[in-house]
Amino acid sequence: MNKSVVCPGTFDPVTYGHLDVIKRVAALYDRVHVAVARSEEKCPLFSADERAAMMAVEVAGYDNVEVEVFDGLVVDYALSKSARIVVRGLRMISDFEYEFQMALTNRKLNSDIETVFMMPNEAYSYLSSKLIKEVARLGADVSKFVSKNVEVRLKEKLGTCRE
Amino acid sequence: MNKSVVCPGTFDPVTYGHLDVIKRVAALYDRVHVAVARSEEKCPLFSADERAAMMAVEVAGYDNVEVEVFDGLVVDYALSKSARIVVRGLRMISDFEYEFQMALTNRKLNSDIETVFMMPNEAYSYLSSKLIKEVARLGADVSKFVSKNVEVRLKEKLGTCRE
Amino acid sequence: MNKSVVCPGTFDPVTYGHLDVIKRVAALYDRVHVAVARSEEKCPLFSADERAAMMAVEVAGYDNVEVEVFDGLVVDYALSKSARIVVRGLRMISDFEYEFQMALTNRKLNSDIETVFMMPNEAYSYLSSKLIKEVARLGADVSKFVSKNVEVRLKEKLGTCRE
Amino acid sequence: MNKSVVCPGTFDPVTYGHLDVIKRVAALYDRVHVAVARSEEKCPLFSADERAAMMAVEVAGYDNVEVEVFDGLVVDYALSKSARIVVRGLRMISDFEYEFQMALTNRKLNSDIETVFMMPNEAYSYLSSKLIKEVARLGADVSKFVSKNVEVRLKEKLGTCRE
Amino acid sequence: MNKSVVCPGTFDPVTYGHLDVIKRVAALYDRVHVAVARSEEKCPLFSADERAAMMAVEVAGYDNVEVEVFDGLVVDYALSKSARIVVRGLRMISDFEYEFQMALTNRKLNSDIETVFMMPNEAYSYLSSKLIKEVARLGADVSKFVSKNVEVRLKEKLGTCRE
Amino acid sequence: MNKSVVCPGTFDPVTYGHLDVIKRVAALYDRVHVAVARSEEKCPLFSADERAAMMAVEVAGYDNVEVEVFDGLVVDYALSKSARIVVRGLRMISDFEYEFQMALTNRKLNSDIETVFMMPNEAYSYLSSKLIKEVARLGADVSKFVSKNVEVRLKEKLGTCRE
Repeated sequence: MNKSVVCPGTFDPVTYGHLDVIKRVAALYDRVHVAVARSEEKCPLFSADERAAMMAVEVAGYDNVEVEVFDGLVVDYALSKSARIVVRGLRMISDFEYEFQMALTNRKLNSDIETVFMMPNEAYSYLSSKLIKEVARLGADVSKFVSKNVEVRLKEKLGTCRE
Repeated sequence: MNKSVVCPGTFDPVTYGHLDVIKRVAALYDRVHVAVARSEEKCPLFSADERAAMMAVEVAGYDNVEVEVFDGLVVDYALSKSARIVVRGLRMISDFEYEFQMALTNRKLNSDIETVFMMPNEAYSYLSSKLIKEVARLGADVSKFVSKNVEVRLKEKLGTCRE
Repeated sequence: MNKSVVCPGTFDPVTYGHLDVIKRVAALYDRVHVAVARSEEKCPLFSADERAAMMAVEVAGYDNVEVEVFDGLVVDYALSKSARIVVRGLRMISDFEYEFQMALTNRKLNSDIETVFMMPNEAYSYLSSKLIKEVARLGADVSKFVSKNVEVRLKEKLGTCRE
Repeated sequence: MNKSVVCPGTFDPVTYGHLDVIKRVAALYDRVHVAVARSEEKCPLFSADERAAMMAVEVAGYDNVEVEVFDGLVVDYALSKSARIVVRGLRMISDFEYEFQMALTNRKLNSDIETVFMMPNEAYSYLSSKLIKEVARLGADVSKFVSKNVEVRLKEKLGTCRE
Repeated sequence: MNKSVVCPGTFDPVTYGHLDVIKRVAALYDRVHVAVARSEEKCPLFSADERAAMMAVEVAGYDNVEVEVFDGLVVDYALSKSARIVVRGLRMISDFEYEFQMALTNRKLNSDIETVFMMPNEAYSYLSSKLIKEVARLGADVSKFVSKNVEVRLKEKLGTCRE
Repeated sequence: MNKSVVCPGTFDPVTYGHLDVIKRVAALYDRVHVAVARSEEKCPLFSADERAAMMAVEVAGYDNVEVEVFDGLVVDYALSKSARIVVRGLRMISDFEYEFQMALTNRKLNSDIETVFMMPNEAYSYLSSKLIKEVARLGADVSKFVSKNVEVRLKEKLGTCRE
């Protein structure tokens, strides 16, 4: 039985909440494909390559985790990796509706791929990339929400944007 | 007692979920006015006329269903049709907050008009026009979500957009 | 087209919120069957006959509203009244899950019967028979929540219970 | 890496919704332990042995699925089976709060065990053992909700109760 | 302006989540009345006096916090303490509906009393007295959820119950 | 103990719902700082100064209420006013997720500042600035939702926009 899983997301930027889920996934499955969605229609702050590079730094210590940019449907990407499981983090504070719609739509697109949901540590239940960017723009110290490396990149990017 | 009802929506494009609700409404009430909101502020993919035309094809078989583009307030449109009931589909996965706010706001705007909610078949509970456009853009086969006619129009439109 | 509707409930006791919905229904449909569920498994405070009698007092002014105790399935009761519509009040604060499960289960039991949801006035959104009994037991004045007649019956009943 | 999972529940009685999730789990993991909780404090309609027997009939065709009654904590049971994953079905209509509380509490009780959530087919999103028993008591035909075998047992049990 | 507040609850038993909220309240207001509801209709595990005694041990270090058993309406109790504010903890995982209904009902019973909601630390968002009793009954170590003193009392009580 | 509180918001424009909460806050605390967030990234209809001016008109009768535009983090603004409490209105129909995320994020940014939630009158539970602008654009009479002064300003602004 294939035990590869895909963890898709925009990761703009990766937070401690994302990393907590990926760490749990890495402990449960043989191979983890972190799939950074290009998502240009969302006008991300960081380019897909920048987001993948930040993620790669964070998961460097995990032998069974790979990071890659992908475009197109998650179910097609999973298929290309021979993965039958897509893992999504489900926070207490979260967009159930969107998650459920996406999971059911993906199932309709390819019934061989299942979405499973995992909960991050409750300490990260309030974290969202959107909110972190919002408060970082207002000058907040975001070191409790993202790694040092991401914090630095975030400051550079927001500094560049302002000028 | 007047038994005309209004089914308002953006229908960008009409999905099997919308049609399931309209079919149920047509079986319960004498006359159904499907009201396609112009909604230009939402930047719809299809023009109001295109959306109404697609809807008209789908409901062609129902004698008591009419399709029309409208602009302005739903309560004013209902009044102009001597309809006292506005029907909205309420999916298990749905935007209750927005639906309830809109229903209560409409009641304040005209207390003679009531909003009633009906559930589509649970098989369509995950369908949203937004998600369908999203996956169609990524190349997905959307034939399980929309009719053949809509599927063709969607491909034409998204093809046009890309070039 | 048959325009009878059924408004089922336990009504233990009837509140201003229930009455607000029934009043709206009476204005929209030809005939309204208020169906008081026996619900003995819920150990109601008032007997089914007492609940129906209290309801009958409240709706006495509406020519097209009838009150009756029923036992068994709502869909069977609706069928016996040639009604194809079951109306349920849906408060902003409410048990969507139960309402949706019941509506979908009823549809499976008889696909000819549709459940439609209507919102009470937002001023009654917080009212629940359960909470009213709870605070009445603690000695609260419940005249803002139920009619004078119900208030008196509630005091009698709770007085009886205590002694 | 151990690929055994535990599917705990009361299953009073097992529904098509439960079976849909178990079938999906059986396709994704090497070994599935369906753990029937004794749950005497919930006053189940069927005894734990009856519930396990009904479940065993349903999953007889799956080589990698075992059914067993358990008492005590799910995390201890999982440990005894060398399983690190507990799978719970998460319906669109469901008790998120309870599920999340239980999952987080279990994590605190044993951080080596993870709960993962999977969605049943949307066609079963409205099914609950509680509602099925409720309508069966009122005489409904429940053949759309449970298997023939469970239906027969349910009638026997409810018949016995009434006499 | 009076700055006394009331923190009502059943506290059966008091958890780290309750204490986290009470500690925050004690830091913001001059005087805190922790009001232990008798709630006999809920069949609590501990008597009101036992619950108040356990609470008193926990808040012994706070000069501005008092613990008392109360019966009747929260708004009447608040009035008797010249407190205009009732504070309720609102967890991410929580019974909004009940909280909102109760708050609005209390406002109707006495419009001078306001309910304000505060969030406990997210680390306690999953804690509920009900779940703690449930897992304690199954033999779980609950030292992460309640204080040492409460843990001992819980074991005594559950031991007594079993024999 | 400092009894100043901050009521932050975009107030684009101020509604009867906002004013209901501010009135309640003014009755409970010594000093209320209504903080109008600049929020340029939200592309508000009115400028921050216009929004503050409209608010100032509305709260002119309250001696202990001040209105000011602010930029940056709410926790920093609160600190600058020696306020330890941030008050947010929490409607039955509302964005809990966003409110909870923001409250928890603010707590991480400055643990000395607490967010407390208060409910507006249920009669205003459906009001949102967004919906009011939406229906005003469509020509609705919004006099039930906002004050006369705001209504006039809204018409001027929307008139200007159209031309």
